[in-house]
Amino acid sequence: MALIVHKYGGTSMGSTERIRNVAKRVAKWVRAGHQLVVVPSAMSGETNRLLGLAKELSPEVVTAPIQRELDAIAATGEQVSVGLLSIALQSEGMEAVSYSGWQVPIRTDSSFTKARIQSIDDARVRADLAAGRVVVITGFQGVDEEDNITTLGRGGSDTSAVAVAAAMKADECLIYTDVDGVYTTDPRIVPEARRLSTISFEEMLEMASLGSKVLQIRSVEFAGKYRVPLRVLSSFTPWDIDINEEAKSGTLITFEEDENMEQAVVSGIAFNRDEAKVTLLGVPDKPGVAFQILGPVADANIDIDVIIQNVSHDGRTDFSFTVHRNDYARALDLLKNKVAPATGASQVLGDAKICKVSIVGIGMRSHVGVAAKMFRCLSEEGINIQMISTSEIKTSVVIDEKYMELAVRALHKAFDLDQPAEN
Amino acid sequence: MALIVHKYGGTSMGSTERIRNVAKRVAKWVRAGHQLVVVPSAMSGETNRLLGLAKELSPEVVTAPIQRELDAIAATGEQVSVGLLSIALQSEGMEAVSYSGWQVPIRTDSSFTKARIQSIDDARVRADLAAGRVVVITGFQGVDEEDNITTLGRGGSDTSAVAVAAAMKADECLIYTDVDGVYTTDPRIVPEARRLSTISFEEMLEMASLGSKVLQIRSVEFAGKYRVPLRVLSSFTPWDIDINEEAKSGTLITFEEDENMEQAVVSGIAFNRDEAKVTLLGVPDKPGVAFQILGPVADANIDIDVIIQNVSHDGRTDFSFTVHRNDYARALDLLKNKVAPATGASQVLGDAKICKVSIVGIGMRSHVGVAAKMFRCLSEEGINIQMISTSEIKTSVVIDEKYMELAVRALHKAFDLDQPAEN
Repeated sequence: MALIVHKYGGTSMGSTERIRNVAKRVAKWVRAGHQLVVVPSAMSGETNRLLGLAKELSPEVVTAPIQRELDAIAATGEQVSVGLLSIALQSEGMEAVSYSGWQVPIRTDSSFTKARIQSIDDARVRADLAAGRVVVITGFQGVDEEDNITTLGRGGSDTSAVAVAAAMKADECLIYTDVDGVYTTDPRIVPEARRLSTISFEEMLEMASLGSKVLQIRSVEFAGKYRVPLRVLSSFTPWDIDINEEAKSGTLITFEEDENMEQAVVSGIAFNRDEAKVTLLGVPDKPGVAFQILGPVADANIDIDVIIQNVSHDGRTDFSFTVHRNDYARALDLLKNKVAPATGASQVLGDAKICKVSIVGIGMRSHVGVAAKMFRCLSEEGINIQMISTSEIKTSVVIDEKYMELAVRALHKAFDLDQPAEN
Repeated sequence: MALIVHKYGGTSMGSTERIRNVAKRVAKWVRAGHQLVVVPSAMSGETNRLLGLAKELSPEVVTAPIQRELDAIAATGEQVSVGLLSIALQSEGMEAVSYSGWQVPIRTDSSFTKARIQSIDDARVRADLAAGRVVVITGFQGVDEEDNITTLGRGGSDTSAVAVAAAMKADECLIYTDVDGVYTTDPRIVPEARRLSTISFEEMLEMASLGSKVLQIRSVEFAGKYRVPLRVLSSFTPWDIDINEEAKSGTLITFEEDENMEQAVVSGIAFNRDEAKVTLLGVPDKPGVAFQILGPVADANIDIDVIIQNVSHDGRTDFSFTVHRNDYARALDLLKNKVAPATGASQVLGDAKICKVSIVGIGMRSHVGVAAKMFRCLSEEGINIQMISTSEIKTSVVIDEKYMELAVRALHKAFDLDQPAEN
């Protein structure tokens, strides 16, 4: 008997018919002898509907007291889901009980609309499991110290599921979603892309943060921190497929580095075209200039990703960084009108037509020459590299966005990702 | 400065546009110097939509664990309402905060779908009022000792509002609804019906229980028990009508018997055609026979209203009672197949085409001959009385339903209810 956490997304919960299928799948796991905690999202479209009503009443101003109300309103979507799923489970002959975040309780800080989980008291849930019940818990939400309802932000149900699994030391947390696992890269760009049967949580973290939108990144961080075995698998398989087959499907995100992982130097190719590049030319190269540039950017709440500063010539250097495209205009404006005059930079350039392509692999740690192989591959395709950024298990390049698909395909092939590497 | 509780029904909360109007009305009261607690219902149609989803998953079986889920699901309707109203109030420049029943907390027993309020802790609400905030509290719901969400049953928001007003010793509880007050009888039947500017809570109790669907009867009981001045008034007046005019509009339900009330012997004519009559003929008249008849009926969860047992002849008597029409077939079946054989009754009769008409008035206590006047009036119209039932402030007759309108009109005129009686 294992303790298993299932998480179902909004699409899986999209109608009473689908909720019934979720109940049948959960019942199958219970009948196989497992204890089940289920964390469903709101029915698809519901969160948007609710927040849309709120927006009609306060289209622009969003103060903290209004955010508090938005959380209380949005949280109802999951409250309805857990109630409906509990009823569906009872119709399947299971004993089941639902809890909202505050009933568990799942304690969070008071950052409305983007709260962080602080603690989970699992006593009540454990008692229900011991009594033979399936426990259905709302995702996406918790309660702060003053009993205000909080939400964790978009995609927060993944984090809720992992946090519950961590608090209860669950044997595995299964994230049922609309893809059947994590791939070496996006199959829409590289048809030869393969599903990975395992991936380390560090690689998953890089893949997730680079745009593989399989899992909310915070849930992966959580899984890594608390060593929760996490599996991403398809919610589109028939509910009555063999449970042993289902239990091995999808992609397992592990925190153990086994031999298989050592074999694959690069596990996947990630990419993203949400960024834009800005450059300050001719910045006087003196202590404190990086802070002079990035301080005002941070103050304006603009997130920075890749930063490049090259060696200087004649006491002047060029300074580049990337921001989210949504912040591009604001960043450019800030540099031109505030930062350049203050630092004495000679010119401000910007380019929104860029993309970032990365190779990710825990094997890179113990293999030299991986980055070099990447650069050679891109060079052979005639792709100019504009910026480079590296970490222990990732090398990213910024290139012209028109080369994105070409770069991803070439790298996927160069690192043999189209060949079955695992066994 | 007064402490005022406003209650708004689902129609008043039916769209964001209407919610904005509620906010403007509440803001007007705050600007006039009052402290406001507002109890809104769910947006119209929302409770039915939510329970409809649940019903798709469990069409027939409704066990206690399922009722627990139904309450958690249904309660979200009001949770959305209070959040939206709080946002609308903030958009009007008010400080406002919303609470669900469990956050106040409003403690109830654990009778899911028909819970009763046990206590209300007003500390948090009082602190908010003292800080200048409008407090918006969910109607219809509370939380039991084990932190399960409970609901009070249909129309429960009236009761919530009155209970909050009672707990906080509010100066007045204003129930905004789709009628502009309590009338001497239904104006659709008697166009001359007049709105009463005041009515005693005991009369209101009789009127409410007899089918004047202005207020949920439990809310009137609550108001009487805790002596909460309760006003029923229209939510269809423009939000910006003069506040002094608004404060005197509608019908005030009081617990004080002033001189005005003494003057009106009969305050109103109530009626209802939801009942059916069943009769056992030739029941042996011996001790315990009433229990032998009504025990099985109560066991079958059939509510009984009027009961008549006449004097006996030759050791046998006839026994009649009325039940809700929905229970008529079941009651008839029970009497024929179980009760009649057990008691030795000679025959079972039934009649679903009846109605009940009542005169209600606190003045009846000190006036003799009121019932006689009623019977004479009906006799003059040629209406045969089938059953009679009396209480201290009410006399009810059961008659053929085809005479209902005629009886109501005749009684309304006979007791001068079309004449202005108050001043």
